[in-house]
Amino acid sequence: MGSVLFRRIGELVTNDPAAGEGPLGVLHDAALFVETGRVAWTGPDDAAPQGAGDEVVDIAGAAIVPGFVDSHTHMVFAGDRATEFAARMAGRPYAAGGIETTVAATRVASDSELSGTLARLTAEALRAGTTTFECKSGYGLAVEHEARCLRLARAVTEETTFLGAHVVPGEFAGRADDYVALVAGAMLDACARFARWVDVFCDEGAFDADQAGVVLDAGRARGLGARVHANQLGHGPGVRVAVKARAASADHCTYLSDDDVELLAGSATVATLLPACDFSLRAPYPDARRLLDAGVTVALATDCNPGTSYTTSMPLCIALAVRELHMSPEEALAAATLGGAKALRRDDVGHLRHGARADLAVLDAPTYLHLPYRPGVPLVGATWKDGARTPPTGR
Amino acid sequence: MGSVLFRRIGELVTNDPAAGEGPLGVLHDAALFVETGRVAWTGPDDAAPQGAGDEVVDIAGAAIVPGFVDSHTHMVFAGDRATEFAARMAGRPYAAGGIETTVAATRVASDSELSGTLARLTAEALRAGTTTFECKSGYGLAVEHEARCLRLARAVTEETTFLGAHVVPGEFAGRADDYVALVAGAMLDACARFARWVDVFCDEGAFDADQAGVVLDAGRARGLGARVHANQLGHGPGVRVAVKARAASADHCTYLSDDDVELLAGSATVATLLPACDFSLRAPYPDARRLLDAGVTVALATDCNPGTSYTTSMPLCIALAVRELHMSPEEALAAATLGGAKALRRDDVGHLRHGARADLAVLDAPTYLHLPYRPGVPLVGATWKDGARTPPTGR
Repeated sequence: MGSVLFRRIGELVTNDPAAGEGPLGVLHDAALFVETGRVAWTGPDDAAPQGAGDEVVDIAGAAIVPGFVDSHTHMVFAGDRATEFAARMAGRPYAAGGIETTVAATRVASDSELSGTLARLTAEALRAGTTTFECKSGYGLAVEHEARCLRLARAVTEETTFLGAHVVPGEFAGRADDYVALVAGAMLDACARFARWVDVFCDEGAFDADQAGVVLDAGRARGLGARVHANQLGHGPGVRVAVKARAASADHCTYLSDDDVELLAGSATVATLLPACDFSLRAPYPDARRLLDAGVTVALATDCNPGTSYTTSMPLCIALAVRELHMSPEEALAAATLGGAKALRRDDVGHLRHGARADLAVLDAPTYLHLPYRPGVPLVGATWKDGARTPPTGR
Repeated sequence: MGSVLFRRIGELVTNDPAAGEGPLGVLHDAALFVETGRVAWTGPDDAAPQGAGDEVVDIAGAAIVPGFVDSHTHMVFAGDRATEFAARMAGRPYAAGGIETTVAATRVASDSELSGTLARLTAEALRAGTTTFECKSGYGLAVEHEARCLRLARAVTEETTFLGAHVVPGEFAGRADDYVALVAGAMLDACARFARWVDVFCDEGAFDADQAGVVLDAGRARGLGARVHANQLGHGPGVRVAVKARAASADHCTYLSDDDVELLAGSATVATLLPACDFSLRAPYPDARRLLDAGVTVALATDCNPGTSYTTSMPLCIALAVRELHMSPEEALAAATLGGAKALRRDDVGHLRHGARADLAVLDAPTYLHLPYRPGVPLVGATWKDGARTPPTGR
């Protein structure tokens, strides 16, 4: 693996306050030196190591930001719910049960069909600047199907999450506790080796606090870290369950009590906000300011899934976070990079400090401010992962 | 110019109800034959003309839609207002005077700087599926500067609009009527030969009904068609002025009285809605349903400009129209194609009827529904204009 020297970076966001200005650690007219896939040096362009770099890349005044860390996706699935989307936009309300449509399509899909969709979406995400992403199961909801989905996900990311407890599948209707026993027993046995995380949808129409606790405890006993779908559809116990389980993240967080906010602020649990989901559901947006002002760590993620948020675009999430969640562009970029890394308990990504993975997005723009300022425009000109350009050849 | 046969189109939107299903005239498993840059035939793939086409393009089940018609942009400018955007998102209100910032930068920019930005934005728009676009002056606000901006715009589109009456420039502070006389006199004399349209910003902080009437009448006397920036910032006379001037379009239309809606419904004036502007201003969205239900023709456009809507993405406008304006995906696509064409009084674009310009977008998706269903994702895989792939070589 060769070394790369990026020259003439108009604006370099390091997320390292010690390396540059402000909380984002911004450098202007900067250079970045990458060796063996890691950040080896950042500094002023005119102080760049002379003669360094097997490859020298002239950024010509554009901005570089850390690669986006998308800490919440559901990208192993089959089928398309575009008509359900259109019907919802015409007024039909969303209910968690819509997940069943995708479960039915996923179960009958071949491995290659599932992997093909996953490859297409991960390539799309990479083109949009995402260099680390989490991927959940949850459209299998049977032992062999959940294990298969996680095995396929593991082939594309190490951040895999077992979400057998997504909803109660039709064949367990009225027997939720039986399903929870299966999830926490035989299903977890089959899935744990493919997963880093265990997640549960703790909300109206999905699982209650006791059921969620059973699943999370079982996962944690197998060495999996906890994450929770919490408080998306209404007030409820999701955040409490997440903090009690020392979850890395409580995701959605639309309906929070004062106690919920206080619990999050006093914990190491990140609040992961998913504004593209709220956009596609025409749902209320979470109150990001309340969380930020209380000192809660906030992450932004896409929630990419075919039912409620069929986008891979972290730049869209940033634009929505600024417009709808009243986050500043600075807060939104931090949440989409460092925040996502914290939500995955990773310290090697989400920033460009010395030693970090050389995962970065080169923008077709002079500043990261253009991410929310230019909504809908594909502003990521090139994505580099582990110090290598991706895809290695042109599109 | 060769002929092209598009085969295996999963979904072909013609906007010709006589050619296919529904108001969009949708064909499935279709083919499209293009000769000398025009649509020569559409129909079922298995009835495609045998042996036809100097080039045969296999669409492999994807969707084709008419190229987008963006009937409202301000793409001749210099400078960047990203920091103003960030400040606005932090709570500073928008006022029409912000335009002055861009005027100052535009006046001191070289021709090549202005043309370079214009070329970058038009290429970006084309990649996103826009095949026809209008472009206004309005950041010169002095005779030679307005004429220069229109001359540069005319080099990239025939749909040029003289918007000397954008705001009253600083040097005419307190002398608005003097500025209107200049616009309707010497400025129009210098600009008319580069313009197809005349436009005026008739709103709070800009021009009143009498002033707008003077400008529009003068432009019409020179053979220019009328268009009006109407009712963006508050209730006012904009729509009345537009309908009275037989304008092709009244643009923005956020604050409408019942009389305004009735006037539009009884006229040939299109209501052009600009939801990306409302997005970036955090402004209220117009009530599209009220207009559609009253029988008003609605267009969607980007309003691409550096102050209030720095996007070239018609797909974003469609997604916002569905989410925020409660338009159906079908209505939104029609408004972004045929609606835009009507707002420019064009019958050769915005549809794929026999004889239409072969301007089209090939989607990386099986259906146009994915445009709002997959927000933020660059779904246009290829854009064809006048029967030729653009850009002719790969990106």
